[in-house]
Amino acid sequence: MSLLVVGSVAFDAIESPYGKVDRAVGGAATYFAVAASFFTPVNLVGIVGDDFTSKDVAIFKGRSIDIEGLEHAEGKTFFWAGKYSQNLNERVTLATELNVFAGFKPKLPDKYKKSQFVFLANIAPELQRDVLHQVKVRPKVAALDTMNYWISGSNGELRETLKHVDILMINDSETRELSNEHNLLRAAKHIFKMGPSTLIVKRGEYGAMMVDKRGVFCVPAFPLEEPHDPTGAGDSFAGGFMGYLASVGKKNDLALRRAMVYGSVLGSFTVEKFGLDRLRSLKHKEIHARARHFAKLTQFKL
Amino acid sequence: MSLLVVGSVAFDAIESPYGKVDRAVGGAATYFAVAASFFTPVNLVGIVGDDFTSKDVAIFKGRSIDIEGLEHAEGKTFFWAGKYSQNLNERVTLATELNVFAGFKPKLPDKYKKSQFVFLANIAPELQRDVLHQVKVRPKVAALDTMNYWISGSNGELRETLKHVDILMINDSETRELSNEHNLLRAAKHIFKMGPSTLIVKRGEYGAMMVDKRGVFCVPAFPLEEPHDPTGAGDSFAGGFMGYLASVGKKNDLALRRAMVYGSVLGSFTVEKFGLDRLRSLKHKEIHARARHFAKLTQFKL
Repeated sequence: MSLLVVGSVAFDAIESPYGKVDRAVGGAATYFAVAASFFTPVNLVGIVGDDFTSKDVAIFKGRSIDIEGLEHAEGKTFFWAGKYSQNLNERVTLATELNVFAGFKPKLPDKYKKSQFVFLANIAPELQRDVLHQVKVRPKVAALDTMNYWISGSNGELRETLKHVDILMINDSETRELSNEHNLLRAAKHIFKMGPSTLIVKRGEYGAMMVDKRGVFCVPAFPLEEPHDPTGAGDSFAGGFMGYLASVGKKNDLALRRAMVYGSVLGSFTVEKFGLDRLRSLKHKEIHARARHFAKLTQFKL
Repeated sequence: MSLLVVGSVAFDAIESPYGKVDRAVGGAATYFAVAASFFTPVNLVGIVGDDFTSKDVAIFKGRSIDIEGLEHAEGKTFFWAGKYSQNLNERVTLATELNVFAGFKPKLPDKYKKSQFVFLANIAPELQRDVLHQVKVRPKVAALDTMNYWISGSNGELRETLKHVDILMINDSETRELSNEHNLLRAAKHIFKMGPSTLIVKRGEYGAMMVDKRGVFCVPAFPLEEPHDPTGAGDSFAGGFMGYLASVGKKNDLALRRAMVYGSVLGSFTVEKFGLDRLRSLKHKEIHARARHFAKLTQFKL
């Protein structure tokens, strides 16, 4: 089924102990779309500047990614620069230049307006809500990512948007800040009252945890000896997760658990190389092999 | 098969947001023995003072715990006092009084000397090694816990002891300090060169991870809405793990994975109440029900 993503398309400058790039295509919607396109066609809504050339657009070509919704505006593309610590477990943001992204007003092409699966990447909550309003039929699954900046600075807007969302996909500290509750089970109960019926907590090197009324499901992070660059891991997780769900068109427990695994698979590939390098060369058979590896990592018989 | 544990038996004073006890029986060997006794008979070697009364000894009675190896010495029993933060994720040690434990020289009763499964709880590495020398036949599984104090202060002794150990069971930060390596897979490779063929990393609220030459196995922590007191969780994990292994007398992959689950089950019960309170009232059927719950928490079908 159709999958819509709205979010940032950016240039990233990244430095880690394993290397350095000055200007690589990145952004949440980009990682999401590339990851999800392994499972299902993706419709992308975002904005880039006139410095975003046909060479840059190439990342979306040859994949099932529709970029009619990628607006080209006058000015420069959103730019982010960050540097990782020796162990990759800390990150310093060196620059955030919003550029054309500052004036972003998502406009859905008509053919996107019946999207059954919608992912609202981390942008202002009022824009996320506006996108949901543009979708004509209530989507089967609307999922949302956000960050501390919006949780503290636009809490009312975020709360209003969360009323219309099925799945909230955030990290530990965001979960705790939003719910004002340290314990993640109690945090989930608070969040269910805000609208979402499913909470997915992204826990970095510790994997991901899904909580809904049926209970809890945990997936570890795939153990890697040499992760190179965590940038985009969370967005790749979301892409694998939503891409898989949209591909089966279901949201039952079986599908959600599999989606958690495929999300973790895509996230784990992303961190293996710099920026989008690993996803660029990724093959379907590698995805399925790693999903089986996740089974080996977690399964036991009583 | 016979399971031997050597370690501390203590009085603990514990304060958490859920309550306070001034003097409860605790210590690594105590938590270990009580947890393991749900699976297999346990032989305990430790030392207590003359303030350790028959009322205190009662914790071991009515269970399959042999305390012929529990030495009663003149003086006071090892005393530890600690206080947990609001979220239970930080702990301050308020007092550590070694008392009779300072002169502890483990002496194995003859009937303990053929133990096939041995757990060396966190004590001085030269004492751990001495215990292994007293065991007449090379045990089927010798497992060891240690802490930063010995890793930094008695590194040579610890390295010497590790040569004779199959399983090392420590936490994240200890793993990193011992191996001088942040990445846990690379850390495991370093540790395998020191002797152990299996590394089990205890990760608190994130569960536990086992690494051996076959690969990695992860178990999440059991999600609890109201954990009361983390004291003894790691030792209860070790007790459930070793108790299960000794009960089946095997160390193949299937058995080790189940042991990881039963370890996590016992650890999760311990934190539900203060000190040993939850283990005191624990029933076998509760253990098996929670093990099945762990399966629900982690299993998926591809």
